[in-house]
Amino acid sequence: MNNTAPTITTGALPASCKTHIAGQIHNIRVPLRVIQLSDGDTLSVYDSSGPYTDPAAAPDIHKGLLAQRGNWQQTRGDVEAYEGRSITAADNGFVEGNRLVPEFPAKRTPWRAKGDRAITQMAYAKAGIVTPEMEYVAIRENQGRMAAWEAVRDGESFGAELPDLVTPDFVRAEIAAGRAIIPANINHPELEPMVIGRNFLVKINANIGNSAVTSSMQEEVEKMVWAIRWGADTVMDLSTGRNIHNIREWIIRNSPVPIGTVPLYQALEKVGGRAEDLTWEVFRDTLIEQAEQGVDYFTIHAGVRLHMIPMTARRMTGIVSRGGSIMAKWCLHHHRESFLYEHFEEICDIARAYDVSFSLGDGLRPGSIADANDAAQFAELETLGELTKIAWRKDCQVMIEGPGHVPMHKIKANMDKQLAHCDEAPFYTLGPLTTDIAPGYDHITSAIGAAMIGWYGTAMLCYVTPKEHLGLPDRDDVKTGVITYKIAAHAADLAKGHPGAQARDDALSKARFEFRWEDQFNLGLDPDTARKMHDETMPAQAHKLAHFCSMCGPKFCSMRISHDIRAEAERSQGMADMAEKFRDGGDLYMPVDHVEVAE
Amino acid sequence: MNNTAPTITTGALPASCKTHIAGQIHNIRVPLRVIQLSDGDTLSVYDSSGPYTDPAAAPDIHKGLLAQRGNWQQTRGDVEAYEGRSITAADNGFVEGNRLVPEFPAKRTPWRAKGDRAITQMAYAKAGIVTPEMEYVAIRENQGRMAAWEAVRDGESFGAELPDLVTPDFVRAEIAAGRAIIPANINHPELEPMVIGRNFLVKINANIGNSAVTSSMQEEVEKMVWAIRWGADTVMDLSTGRNIHNIREWIIRNSPVPIGTVPLYQALEKVGGRAEDLTWEVFRDTLIEQAEQGVDYFTIHAGVRLHMIPMTARRMTGIVSRGGSIMAKWCLHHHRESFLYEHFEEICDIARAYDVSFSLGDGLRPGSIADANDAAQFAELETLGELTKIAWRKDCQVMIEGPGHVPMHKIKANMDKQLAHCDEAPFYTLGPLTTDIAPGYDHITSAIGAAMIGWYGTAMLCYVTPKEHLGLPDRDDVKTGVITYKIAAHAADLAKGHPGAQARDDALSKARFEFRWEDQFNLGLDPDTARKMHDETMPAQAHKLAHFCSMCGPKFCSMRISHDIRAEAERSQGMADMAEKFRDGGDLYMPVDHVEVAE
Repeated sequence: MNNTAPTITTGALPASCKTHIAGQIHNIRVPLRVIQLSDGDTLSVYDSSGPYTDPAAAPDIHKGLLAQRGNWQQTRGDVEAYEGRSITAADNGFVEGNRLVPEFPAKRTPWRAKGDRAITQMAYAKAGIVTPEMEYVAIRENQGRMAAWEAVRDGESFGAELPDLVTPDFVRAEIAAGRAIIPANINHPELEPMVIGRNFLVKINANIGNSAVTSSMQEEVEKMVWAIRWGADTVMDLSTGRNIHNIREWIIRNSPVPIGTVPLYQALEKVGGRAEDLTWEVFRDTLIEQAEQGVDYFTIHAGVRLHMIPMTARRMTGIVSRGGSIMAKWCLHHHRESFLYEHFEEICDIARAYDVSFSLGDGLRPGSIADANDAAQFAELETLGELTKIAWRKDCQVMIEGPGHVPMHKIKANMDKQLAHCDEAPFYTLGPLTTDIAPGYDHITSAIGAAMIGWYGTAMLCYVTPKEHLGLPDRDDVKTGVITYKIAAHAADLAKGHPGAQARDDALSKARFEFRWEDQFNLGLDPDTARKMHDETMPAQAHKLAHFCSMCGPKFCSMRISHDIRAEAERSQGMADMAEKFRDGGDLYMPVDHVEVAE
Repeated sequence: MNNTAPTITTGALPASCKTHIAGQIHNIRVPLRVIQLSDGDTLSVYDSSGPYTDPAAAPDIHKGLLAQRGNWQQTRGDVEAYEGRSITAADNGFVEGNRLVPEFPAKRTPWRAKGDRAITQMAYAKAGIVTPEMEYVAIRENQGRMAAWEAVRDGESFGAELPDLVTPDFVRAEIAAGRAIIPANINHPELEPMVIGRNFLVKINANIGNSAVTSSMQEEVEKMVWAIRWGADTVMDLSTGRNIHNIREWIIRNSPVPIGTVPLYQALEKVGGRAEDLTWEVFRDTLIEQAEQGVDYFTIHAGVRLHMIPMTARRMTGIVSRGGSIMAKWCLHHHRESFLYEHFEEICDIARAYDVSFSLGDGLRPGSIADANDAAQFAELETLGELTKIAWRKDCQVMIEGPGHVPMHKIKANMDKQLAHCDEAPFYTLGPLTTDIAPGYDHITSAIGAAMIGWYGTAMLCYVTPKEHLGLPDRDDVKTGVITYKIAAHAADLAKGHPGAQARDDALSKARFEFRWEDQFNLGLDPDTARKMHDETMPAQAHKLAHFCSMCGPKFCSMRISHDIRAEAERSQGMADMAEKFRDGGDLYMPVDHVEVAE
């Protein structure tokens, strides 16, 4: 991010206000962004941005967000507060003195399940219970619609079954079947719940992480706030190094979206960065540390098995997943299966006590076009399918991570195999990048693959920024990555035939046809950039009312001519008559073959 | 473009030199860009940039480029030089005095066919003649390969038949069948010929146009030079307004790539911008004017027929093609079929005398997701198929323009219908944009659609810049548009299984795995941007040799760990043995179901 610590970005998006829809079953308030149009109409859109875009909220990062979820979990009677694990020096990378990021001011008491009970959304769903979280996401998915958008539903969903309207019980059934998850650690009460599954809107994740240089808490929180402002549905904190525990606490306490982590990164820090020194005990301790803080989902690379590692030896780019390479190194060094694989059931026992969801990591994903869809990758995917079934037996929520780098013609096989091996558990892919030849533009190489795999059924797309493979994303890169992935996710929703998706395209296209420039900007994913680009060529305020644009000028504007045509046609005997009269050339005109050519 | 007139950009791309491959049949020199790698290897890539990237060339825009094609056409004996049409004040929009862009210094004598002979590439192809142009593009398509790339050819080509190596006779056969075109007006001897067809590399076009404010010739030429530097295969000059004739002359004389135009734009200027005042005579005169200058392809909106216009009345965004809307207005006003449709055979007679190729315009293409694949669009496409057959009978080369705005699930139908109605004439699409909700990012919304339709068989992709719908693209926008479309075209080549495509991905991925940072930059589509982004995080020159990158740092670098793994595995009893030993858990490890969970 920028070198100067930014303040937290707040304030509504242009022409937007936040409203809340009340639950009918539970006492919940679900946020919605309403865009005001100049013709008096409005459009409601999904709102991932939390209280930061609510002028009435005035969030203070030193206090953290209000607990949206209140005491939903506690009233279920199956959880208990307890003292929790003590924070150690290792948790923050042994940093001391003024290099230590301060602890978050308010100390929370963690909660966990009583005894060995499963207190996950999946457990409730299987028991037929509609939780507040389920009703919350049902309302949220409908974006204020009371019915399917009037447009024809002609999408190709490849087996996804998108209902006209999402009901709380539909959510429950999807969670029970393992087809969707609500990542919602009971220790993250600030969360505004969201759902990930292929029968819902396609979601996107943005990765953030602390810099090598010491960052302030404000800077780290701002990274998350900035990403969700533009539409990130979840945020993964991939920090390594110092202050990792304290920074994570600041982020979670201020985050309305689910926070995911790769606990292995922190565990590795605790053993001085030597993969072979990792132990189950250190890893287990890290899981509990993070579960108590409220991490909503863990990436666990338990699918990397010893016999698969040699399969990567002839690859163009070896193992490119950090977690995968760490575990592969451990396995080879100790010549045994990983502690993640061997202790997977115990990992489930921890997760189900806090309702931490799993994102089963694809440690052997391909890192180049040459390595796409190879034996190592698909062997791991089969193992992830086995682990999914184990997790489900423990009532744990699961999604599956996917590639990576895949040319277009090999993308669908990834989705098909994932659905088959993992029994429709939500797929969560990184891109995939459809070519390797454009460093600096990998948000674009990957948006192509992301849109396609989203269409085929991937439930969440992990963003890629322009800096991928080159450096650390700055503020502009994060925004570009998020907007690019919102495009991919929305293109996928449209192609799947999501009943609400086309409403926004139609509203924007109508504004375009009617020369309502401000509405075009405000309905877009990035009003600020659209307005700025228009200003570059036509800066005057009057141009925002012009019935033409800079590209063609008034004489050539096709849309203006279209209006003229419409008016002219309506003056004549009516469109339908005209169409009839001249169809197929009528009598008036000979077929082109017989036209005399006269110079 | 920028307000200050830029100088012409010259000089080789980083670590690149230009070589030429000699013809075996004809006396030709085909350019090739060779990228030098730090390990002594090289990679040859297609080079659209012309003499501007050749340090030995020193082009002078006041002289124009050397005539690459020499007297190829004249030696065929079927063309003649003639005095040509006189330039009128109307040709330059009646501009006078110091507002008139100077004429190009060297006056050319135009050539045309003797009598009514067809002197098109298609005519020669049908006659079994391999022209220098055909051999030129055959060599060019192979990019210096002597054989198919060693990678497995596992693409899905959807019926395209990509040969291992392109031979001159393969080109001839494709041209004869109408499946490919070489846009190469005999009055454009400066051209480095290129081919457009689905059995060749996917091409991209960049649009340029003069600004409303007076531009200098240098500025206009630089727009073209800048676009081809980054990979534009053809350039369309969509200028309107003043100086249109003289600016076009400067561009063509300095262009090594085919120049396309929409002659209707200039014709409309000649009648004061009033569509209804257009006549066949004015249009015909404009065709000859531009054919004599050397325009390589004309967009002709002859498919807009009177009975189709009412079909657009209920559209969300009406008619969005400028040419389409102009013709629709003319048709309605005069209540008759357009002069383009009625005089199409005569238009062919002009085109075949100069070998101007047709780009049959899709005047009724959809301008929004809501209007995609509607009756108007497909009715016009059928007419374009009829016109294609007429043109082919006249031995004219034809490609077909396509949409526009199309959601992903409706893209393939466009390709399938185009192939069916237009008998495999090359398809040339604008995007398509896969959603309307991201003004400011339509290079990305459209790159998704462009990559997909390129995969399905589209031969050339017309770029879209970030400024689409908002304003005039500046220099950075043009570059972003071109690079984005090179990505889409290359992703399509990979997915089609083009035998040479993966070589560049593999070279770059290998460089990545071996931490050859400079090679990664230089092998990419935009070395400057890649290097700049790397510098932002790791500016020191030593970092360009680092065996890790800024994203993970040395401890976490998965690729470095992969190297360690490879070394470690090789030290042990060998990869294959290990794989055998531990496959399926072997005896050493119990299946995960039976692992004891011990805390």
